[in-house]
Amino acid sequence: MALTVAALALPTTGWAEKRTFDMTIEDTKITLVDKQQFHTFAFNGQVPGPLIHVKEGDELTVNVNNLTTLPHTIHWHGMLQKGTWRMDGVPDTTQAAIKPGDTFTYKFVAEPSGTMWYHCHVNVNEHVAMRGMWGPFIVDPKQPTPIEKKVTKDYIMMLSDWASKYAFKPGYGGVPGDVFDYFTLNGKAFPDSQPLRVNKGDVVRIRLIGAGELTHSIHIHGHVFKVAFKDGRPLPMPYEADTIMVGPGERYDLILTADNPGRWMVHDHVDSHTMNGDKPMGGLMTVIEYNEISRNDAFYAWKDKKFVPDFYYEESLKKPYGLHDAPGFKGQAVQ
Amino acid sequence: MALTVAALALPTTGWAEKRTFDMTIEDTKITLVDKQQFHTFAFNGQVPGPLIHVKEGDELTVNVNNLTTLPHTIHWHGMLQKGTWRMDGVPDTTQAAIKPGDTFTYKFVAEPSGTMWYHCHVNVNEHVAMRGMWGPFIVDPKQPTPIEKKVTKDYIMMLSDWASKYAFKPGYGGVPGDVFDYFTLNGKAFPDSQPLRVNKGDVVRIRLIGAGELTHSIHIHGHVFKVAFKDGRPLPMPYEADTIMVGPGERYDLILTADNPGRWMVHDHVDSHTMNGDKPMGGLMTVIEYNEISRNDAFYAWKDKKFVPDFYYEESLKKPYGLHDAPGFKGQAVQ
Amino acid sequence: MALTVAALALPTTGWAEKRTFDMTIEDTKITLVDKQQFHTFAFNGQVPGPLIHVKEGDELTVNVNNLTTLPHTIHWHGMLQKGTWRMDGVPDTTQAAIKPGDTFTYKFVAEPSGTMWYHCHVNVNEHVAMRGMWGPFIVDPKQPTPIEKKVTKDYIMMLSDWASKYAFKPGYGGVPGDVFDYFTLNGKAFPDSQPLRVNKGDVVRIRLIGAGELTHSIHIHGHVFKVAFKDGRPLPMPYEADTIMVGPGERYDLILTADNPGRWMVHDHVDSHTMNGDKPMGGLMTVIEYNEISRNDAFYAWKDKKFVPDFYYEESLKKPYGLHDAPGFKGQAVQ
Repeated sequence: MALTVAALALPTTGWAEKRTFDMTIEDTKITLVDKQQFHTFAFNGQVPGPLIHVKEGDELTVNVNNLTTLPHTIHWHGMLQKGTWRMDGVPDTTQAAIKPGDTFTYKFVAEPSGTMWYHCHVNVNEHVAMRGMWGPFIVDPKQPTPIEKKVTKDYIMMLSDWASKYAFKPGYGGVPGDVFDYFTLNGKAFPDSQPLRVNKGDVVRIRLIGAGELTHSIHIHGHVFKVAFKDGRPLPMPYEADTIMVGPGERYDLILTADNPGRWMVHDHVDSHTMNGDKPMGGLMTVIEYNEISRNDAFYAWKDKKFVPDFYYEESLKKPYGLHDAPGFKGQAVQ
Repeated sequence: MALTVAALALPTTGWAEKRTFDMTIEDTKITLVDKQQFHTFAFNGQVPGPLIHVKEGDELTVNVNNLTTLPHTIHWHGMLQKGTWRMDGVPDTTQAAIKPGDTFTYKFVAEPSGTMWYHCHVNVNEHVAMRGMWGPFIVDPKQPTPIEKKVTKDYIMMLSDWASKYAFKPGYGGVPGDVFDYFTLNGKAFPDSQPLRVNKGDVVRIRLIGAGELTHSIHIHGHVFKVAFKDGRPLPMPYEADTIMVGPGERYDLILTADNPGRWMVHDHVDSHTMNGDKPMGGLMTVIEYNEISRNDAFYAWKDKKFVPDFYYEESLKKPYGLHDAPGFKGQAVQ
Repeated sequence: MALTVAALALPTTGWAEKRTFDMTIEDTKITLVDKQQFHTFAFNGQVPGPLIHVKEGDELTVNVNNLTTLPHTIHWHGMLQKGTWRMDGVPDTTQAAIKPGDTFTYKFVAEPSGTMWYHCHVNVNEHVAMRGMWGPFIVDPKQPTPIEKKVTKDYIMMLSDWASKYAFKPGYGGVPGDVFDYFTLNGKAFPDSQPLRVNKGDVVRIRLIGAGELTHSIHIHGHVFKVAFKDGRPLPMPYEADTIMVGPGERYDLILTADNPGRWMVHDHVDSHTMNGDKPMGGLMTVIEYNEISRNDAFYAWKDKKFVPDFYYEESLKKPYGLHDAPGFKGQAVQ
């Protein structure tokens, strides 16, 4: 009983609701880390894009207004689009791309459930690989699995890569041979990423989404996790690991029990992905901080860290179903 | 009953037949896409090589005549070679390489069953990675699994990569640091690849073979597939996914039910692998076209596409067991 | 009964023993292959580092003396560090890095069991990716699985990558875009690696450890193996394969029955990883040699090979529990 109370109380209104969302695509300058900025084509002016959190079977209408100077679409990665293939968001295959200034309306049913994402499907080598055109799309299941019912902390981590050479050359970049030299968690590199703050006893779900060009080998210290979902679908036989390879387009949901108070690294084991340009000890790194443990060791890189909640959408995921902008991910408009 | 009738009628003569094949290796110029040509060492003058389709337990004799100016072998990737290790095709380990002009005869039993392939084992960094020295080798099982008995459409996709810098420098290339800038499905990049044309109700098997240097993250739109076989062997517990990483040498057999009429992308989610050189929207991409859906949308890139069947060996796989050349994959002889 | 006798007789003294080890970190020159040398920061002056072989639950004390001119730590990859998070070896998170000349003492319980490893966690892009700062750490389980009880030959293979440009620039290298051009098995590239010599009837365990920057696709000829463990943890449903992708930080334990006398390649199917610089037929390659088969074919690259046992720690793993230096991996001290 106590466990049930502690678990995330999901909104429990009826299924198959109709929901309408408005989205824009905007020329937006974001900061990856320190002084490294990047010109993106940002959904609602933020990278990652806003969280879309709905229920399996919901009927969605999304009006997308392209405010940039290049054509785009939105592909809803993982959605079956049963009977609605023209809503799949692929230029020259399911639709003509959305021209600058135009609006396109996507209408489809949220099916199947799981950790999904959305992204542009025009010139993916540039728009997805280094213009930040992606966001999380979580579809709650009608019938949760036993393991996910126990979750008390739910985090989303979108993994991506950036080639600084093209930071301010929108319309270019992402060609074979390009050197990707920045690596981010939800658009930020260490030390400008945020910790995951947990309590002993939490059941933690980490939803990894391979949103960029490269493959990442995510290692979590101090815990063995269960690999519970692949591409949103429950694995028939979850298995244990401490490191998981996440390729472009893939999603893995990891579930672990927070039973080991301490300060634990979460990082990419591809060694060069912990660089910010040519500077070591950055990139795809963060820390699981147990609230039971003091953070004031003199040696701790984050001892004076200003904690910004919702960096992993953990607060947004508790809100009522809908589309949730995240002020922390907003960039600056580019004229 | 209807399903059984619809399923692929496999040739059903007795097992453990003796079969003899002749193969050549020829200097051959092929076209990857548009004007991008490549000098290959092609089995029977084609890339991919001819389909070898036999039954588990068949006794095979393959006479290989090397008509190029460099040494080669054939390794039968996945074959156990029980009691015939000298037929394994590894230069300087199981045999001396086949010199220019010479013939070598491989004799072995086709075991185990599954999606296998063959390739040269001399200087693999060049010969396998960018000279097209590979072909599909399908061994039908004595006892098919329930899931594969339902298949009505059977496709083979060999994934590979090319460094155009070496297109016409045979004997060179494939060294660390080389930039691979073309990416192909059965030797062709989009838009010169071919669609997969299916009917509603088909049970589709896609046999992915990682034949090149790089890892590919294959995503299929509009369907959840079962990952049913790994390296030809049935998985004890198939799992669902919409994206699958295929590394060099690996094979994955995906099985999906065609229950969603539409036009659906199949592509590599490594973003830069959808480039042809520096041109976007090419590379490792194709479309599943349901025959129920008209193809004449003005925006459709393939609305005037000349359909060439058997591009995925789907017709050859229905022929009697044997070695099947594919005229569509033939290149031009190089003097 | 016979099988039990043939299986590796593990040391069987009581559990939860206390063990104390001393380790140094030393500027050391090693040879990867032929004349290609590399400046490393070597644990006990060897690459890979010494084998640590203990039992689940053992209480370990490791005194680490940094004799180099740069700061380091040791992270015990896979160890839970229950209640001992300050022993996790992450600079600026769990401890201050060990300064040149200083000693740090790690105290922790060996838990969980399985194929683990240890490595520096300072500037991993250089220290792990190309300074050889890693070694094997095997924790035997209290309750072995049925499959591992049958093992008669136990091998460890650490996979790593090197960028020769930085061979003699300690303190530099491992930045995005670097070209890795040497690829090693336990620090040696073919032909300077060693064969695995087995007898018909052996049950062979190969413990693959992804210790470097890159992903490797390991293919074994002539056998189908079971993938039995991932990151030290038993898979609930082992599966068959002939090729396995091993990413940075990952471990896979393969188990195969030696039932096919012959000479069989084990190699990376990433084609360019079989190069030594720009020279083909090197890199991540070795051969399983059955003792039943003569090695004197004129064409055999290793017909005159001087066999050096324990290259895969197969002899050290039979010794009493402890830390075992391997003279064969020692390099030369660098002043």
